[in-house]
Amino acid sequence: MNRYFDYAATSPMDPEALEAYVHAATHYYGNAESLHDAGTKASSLLEHCRKKLGELLHVPYEGIAFTSGGTESNELAVSALIRALNSQHLVISGGEHSSIHNLAERMKKQDIQVTIIPLHPNGQVDLTKLEKALYNGPAVVALHHVNGEIGSIQPVEEAVHTARKYGSLLHCDCVQSFGKISLSTIGSIVDSLSVSSHKVSGPKGTGAVYIRPDLSFQPLTPNVTHEKGVRPGTVDVPGAAGFVTAAEKAVKHLPARAAYHQHLKTSFLEELTPGRWQLAGETEHQPVPIIGLMLDHHQGQWMMLEGSRRGYFFSTGSACRVHTQQASYTLSAMGVKEEDAKSFIRISFSHHHSKTDILDLAHHLNLYLPREDD
Amino acid sequence: MNRYFDYAATSPMDPEALEAYVHAATHYYGNAESLHDAGTKASSLLEHCRKKLGELLHVPYEGIAFTSGGTESNELAVSALIRALNSQHLVISGGEHSSIHNLAERMKKQDIQVTIIPLHPNGQVDLTKLEKALYNGPAVVALHHVNGEIGSIQPVEEAVHTARKYGSLLHCDCVQSFGKISLSTIGSIVDSLSVSSHKVSGPKGTGAVYIRPDLSFQPLTPNVTHEKGVRPGTVDVPGAAGFVTAAEKAVKHLPARAAYHQHLKTSFLEELTPGRWQLAGETEHQPVPIIGLMLDHHQGQWMMLEGSRRGYFFSTGSACRVHTQQASYTLSAMGVKEEDAKSFIRISFSHHHSKTDILDLAHHLNLYLPREDD
Repeated sequence: MNRYFDYAATSPMDPEALEAYVHAATHYYGNAESLHDAGTKASSLLEHCRKKLGELLHVPYEGIAFTSGGTESNELAVSALIRALNSQHLVISGGEHSSIHNLAERMKKQDIQVTIIPLHPNGQVDLTKLEKALYNGPAVVALHHVNGEIGSIQPVEEAVHTARKYGSLLHCDCVQSFGKISLSTIGSIVDSLSVSSHKVSGPKGTGAVYIRPDLSFQPLTPNVTHEKGVRPGTVDVPGAAGFVTAAEKAVKHLPARAAYHQHLKTSFLEELTPGRWQLAGETEHQPVPIIGLMLDHHQGQWMMLEGSRRGYFFSTGSACRVHTQQASYTLSAMGVKEEDAKSFIRISFSHHHSKTDILDLAHHLNLYLPREDD
Repeated sequence: MNRYFDYAATSPMDPEALEAYVHAATHYYGNAESLHDAGTKASSLLEHCRKKLGELLHVPYEGIAFTSGGTESNELAVSALIRALNSQHLVISGGEHSSIHNLAERMKKQDIQVTIIPLHPNGQVDLTKLEKALYNGPAVVALHHVNGEIGSIQPVEEAVHTARKYGSLLHCDCVQSFGKISLSTIGSIVDSLSVSSHKVSGPKGTGAVYIRPDLSFQPLTPNVTHEKGVRPGTVDVPGAAGFVTAAEKAVKHLPARAAYHQHLKTSFLEELTPGRWQLAGETEHQPVPIIGLMLDHHQGQWMMLEGSRRGYFFSTGSACRVHTQQASYTLSAMGVKEEDAKSFIRISFSHHHSKTDILDLAHHLNLYLPREDD
């Protein structure tokens, strides 16, 4: 029985990805920047990974830099767009990952104006408010593709359209969408995007950022030679190989898995005692393996610990926020009352789960939910 | 025959380190920040790695944060010290790694004064000039422990003593010294230090920074929960496990290996055609497996490519600088003329090399060096 329901926090490594990692670490160990054959061998593998990732992301591979993960990718992209546009205005949705919120806080200290756009109760960004925020001149917009806490899919195409209208640029955090839903429509239209390896069963400590190659911007750190100056430090080539192997597999099986995720989600929600929980956002029919729930009578923190005690691993939101006492960014942005937000739990699953696994979790949760007629 | 002589650029992964990585990736896959048992299991392993690394570095483990590598560690440490001291003056040796030079360039734009201290022709920092630079008030000093291009050992203790005298703080880049020479005397006296995993045969994309835990500083990015706020993003626990496994092995065998490195270095230099080369710096008797050579008649770049063509992999300096056309920071800082600097090659080896391996390299180089009586 698979009782790990925290795939949105991190996922176990795919055996083929691990094999690719081990193979690259053993046979392609050179520094990709070294000009001798041991270096160029590693560099060839890296470029192969870059091209393959370009295909999977539906972006020109020349714009891809390998990074240490989603957080660094978000930081590199947003700060690159700010410099490319020479803008002093950053507009983010309230449902962004903490890395974007934290970066916005840092930028405020550098005299960059930050506007936070609320989400509708359905979990999607308020496009009217987004448009209004752009009235005063070009800005950089950061909007995620899939919300990591409630699984809502954002209207990225519409947001890009709005951004274009006002000469703005848009960064899309695709950490939770890559490998789960197709990037075919958005990869080619966003100005930058970020992805993380360990969310698609690749190695931890690896990710990538794509920044439109025709955008001209001053790198944050001057004179960097690695990754075309976008990201300094020796590239983790085995990490990139493991990442791309896992990603390729995820994208290949995406349509079938998305249908299966939807099936598991529907089955799970049907099994939960009715009337004793609320779904955070209107995500029933979004084929994303993330479910945000607010439960009657119980605090999420308590439910999470009680679950863990019995071997069920789910969370109360983003793992990047656990030590803060604040409510989830996403729920606050949706206008959920703090009291209700405290009862929040996040279930995130994968194609590795069987229907029995997910029904077993529903039965576990039902133990704590009074029956309809109680 | 082992003909890879670029261990200072990167080293092949140790099989036990790879095994530790695979084991952790398979059995400790949780997000170290998750509060359920899958998370706390990963977090326990991470804390075990932190304690062990504290012992190996001779520092209190509470000050250690795992990072994506040496470059990020250098950036985090130097900028933390600048904020801790609230100083506007950064003093670096001219022989620092490019990550420190690049950071200094970035800081200049933020109105931080940067002073670069030259090296003596022996490859060591000019302590008199360092002291003079500190006359005008407390500054942050960045001095590496072992030079990555010529293998000179810096007088870190004396530099710390000087820094203390003027209320300054000192960061020590130990990327090239860790596992090669003991950190026992300097770990306990520096204010921060950085190390990299792939230089000690650990996985790439992993490193650590130590910042004295009693120093109080504002983190670069606010509200970060991972690694006590020092470094954002999901920690690569398998990377940390592989790193610490490799580091433990390196430190355990350090005395024996250092003696062996010295033996190989002496044998190599004795075998080279006398009078046709110069050692960069006075490093003959420093038991560090890095040799910087300036050759008669040949450009380093040509020698490197010619070597690679015949299967010998060495470099012309730091891999983090290869795409720049500028001379090596270290050689410039030592006052080596640009013409001579062009003939520079770096040989960096390991305990994996046999005496036959290193003599074979000397014979290869001798093919290009005219005999004494020519």
